[in-house]
Amino acid sequence: MYRPEIKVLDCTIRDGGLINKWQFSDKLVRDTYKAVADAGVDYMELGYRASKDQFDPKEYGKWRFCDEEDVKKVLDGIELKSKLSCMVDIGRVNPDDIPPATESIFSLFRTACYLKDIDKAIDLTHRIQDKGYETSINIMAVSTNLEKDIEEGLTQLSESSVPNVYVVDSYGSMYSEDITFLTKKYQEFLPGKTLGIHAHNNKQLAFGNTIQSIIDGCNMIDGSIYGIGRGAGNCPLELLVDFLKNPKYNVRPLLEVIQNHYLDLRKEIEWGYIIPYMITGGLNEHPRTAIAVRQTEEKDDYVSFYDKMTTPEPQI
Amino acid sequence: MYRPEIKVLDCTIRDGGLINKWQFSDKLVRDTYKAVADAGVDYMELGYRASKDQFDPKEYGKWRFCDEEDVKKVLDGIELKSKLSCMVDIGRVNPDDIPPATESIFSLFRTACYLKDIDKAIDLTHRIQDKGYETSINIMAVSTNLEKDIEEGLTQLSESSVPNVYVVDSYGSMYSEDITFLTKKYQEFLPGKTLGIHAHNNKQLAFGNTIQSIIDGCNMIDGSIYGIGRGAGNCPLELLVDFLKNPKYNVRPLLEVIQNHYLDLRKEIEWGYIIPYMITGGLNEHPRTAIAVRQTEEKDDYVSFYDKMTTPEPQI
Repeated sequence: MYRPEIKVLDCTIRDGGLINKWQFSDKLVRDTYKAVADAGVDYMELGYRASKDQFDPKEYGKWRFCDEEDVKKVLDGIELKSKLSCMVDIGRVNPDDIPPATESIFSLFRTACYLKDIDKAIDLTHRIQDKGYETSINIMAVSTNLEKDIEEGLTQLSESSVPNVYVVDSYGSMYSEDITFLTKKYQEFLPGKTLGIHAHNNKQLAFGNTIQSIIDGCNMIDGSIYGIGRGAGNCPLELLVDFLKNPKYNVRPLLEVIQNHYLDLRKEIEWGYIIPYMITGGLNEHPRTAIAVRQTEEKDDYVSFYDKMTTPEPQI
Repeated sequence: MYRPEIKVLDCTIRDGGLINKWQFSDKLVRDTYKAVADAGVDYMELGYRASKDQFDPKEYGKWRFCDEEDVKKVLDGIELKSKLSCMVDIGRVNPDDIPPATESIFSLFRTACYLKDIDKAIDLTHRIQDKGYETSINIMAVSTNLEKDIEEGLTQLSESSVPNVYVVDSYGSMYSEDITFLTKKYQEFLPGKTLGIHAHNNKQLAFGNTIQSIIDGCNMIDGSIYGIGRGAGNCPLELLVDFLKNPKYNVRPLLEVIQNHYLDLRKEIEWGYIIPYMITGGLNEHPRTAIAVRQTEEKDDYVSFYDKMTTPEPQI
């Protein structure tokens, strides 16, 4: 697949940090940035921008906050061939704390929100955009919404000036037909905007669904090294880069950083195709129950977890 | 996805045996059969039928040969709800050694062949079919052939009485577009025949490609428990069963046999998404070089393997 408009975004540190509270060594982040840049990847998302009065810096690593000075120090001396991206959550960042783009190392801010908060997301994103940044809105867990609500949210988005909107399969519950359905709907409601895809791997479909989204017209494509990310993880960046036909992309630096860092990291923290995540994905649910059971002695008692998750609870 | 014609075939022991020379315990095979049958899976392929003068029974387990008496002993007392399948290779089996279907525990014989041997495969399969069995021909490594040769082979197949023909992604090199291309071509040349899919997971696309093949019309669908199979393995049966909409299918027994047997087995023998297999898949090559490097101390030196595999050798 070759289309010159396609841009790839690496979210290794940002999404991977959801597993370990962003406690990555500076060396790992530096080497990852170098690999991502050498691979020709267009953007690297280093973490979240968040207020320190909401998260304790003793508990959370620096990529939870993405202070400009911290980032500049860690990347000092590296040629910044890949643009830098940062994610913000509604209510967890004060937009006044974000400097003008001309004074920042970051190029792109991505706003993550649930559909019900789309108005807040648009407001926050406009304020960031006014500072001169590229922006996007990533509607999380869209698979849990009624179609009429999705259409209402997309209508609001269509009236905004936010240029990029992502289809996000937060729970790794989607099949290729769902990707096509949503991409077509987003296209219908958001003419002129660029669409993106962020897939999770609960059913080993993150890469397959990402390919489907590219076929359907998405041009902002997320991946992470060795698929790192909360729960089952994301679309493996090395597969994505190997798939895309564009001479600027090169998979070799990604293989190198996997063997130098991510094989060892995978022994310390876990992500990937693990049955409890497959179960929550199949049920279109947040992975939090699976994450919880993986911390217990029953972590490999898949049948008990399945029975618990599929036994109907009394409803109102 | 629901289509009443869809049949699922488990190839856990047959394809998994390529890793460990079919040295599975009888208990594992019994418990696997029970799980597959309780999951509502239509066929279970227990192994290969091969002549003992070609393979040493001291080196190879009983599923390399699938002697009728061995199979009956191991499955003794279990209700045979899933039909039994056996694979044969050209030149490794004497069809005279195969009893009439009425005297056999097996229902289905599948013939694996390369395209160049399609005439031999048709001849062998006709001889087996004449004994009263269901049959199929599985054209391996079809991704390495010129289109004119594929069309010639399919024309020969169209003139045969073999009812089932598989699209086989032996090297895990195909993308969904390749699956669609081949399935459409097989349909065009083989009207009236049932098509099947056997996918490998080198790029984490075995399940995604299998879904694509179902959308495109394949009705004989291969999977293996926890994706076990040579190299990167196959389409995980638990994902496939969870995907298909048909009340006869039930994922729970598969989760149970994974936790009881396949987690431990995975610690003894390896399969799955491992970078050298991703590299051979990307190059549309047999995984033998990756299997070899995984036996060495350099098994995780991905960059050296990549460099070796992508350095052009002198050509004639």
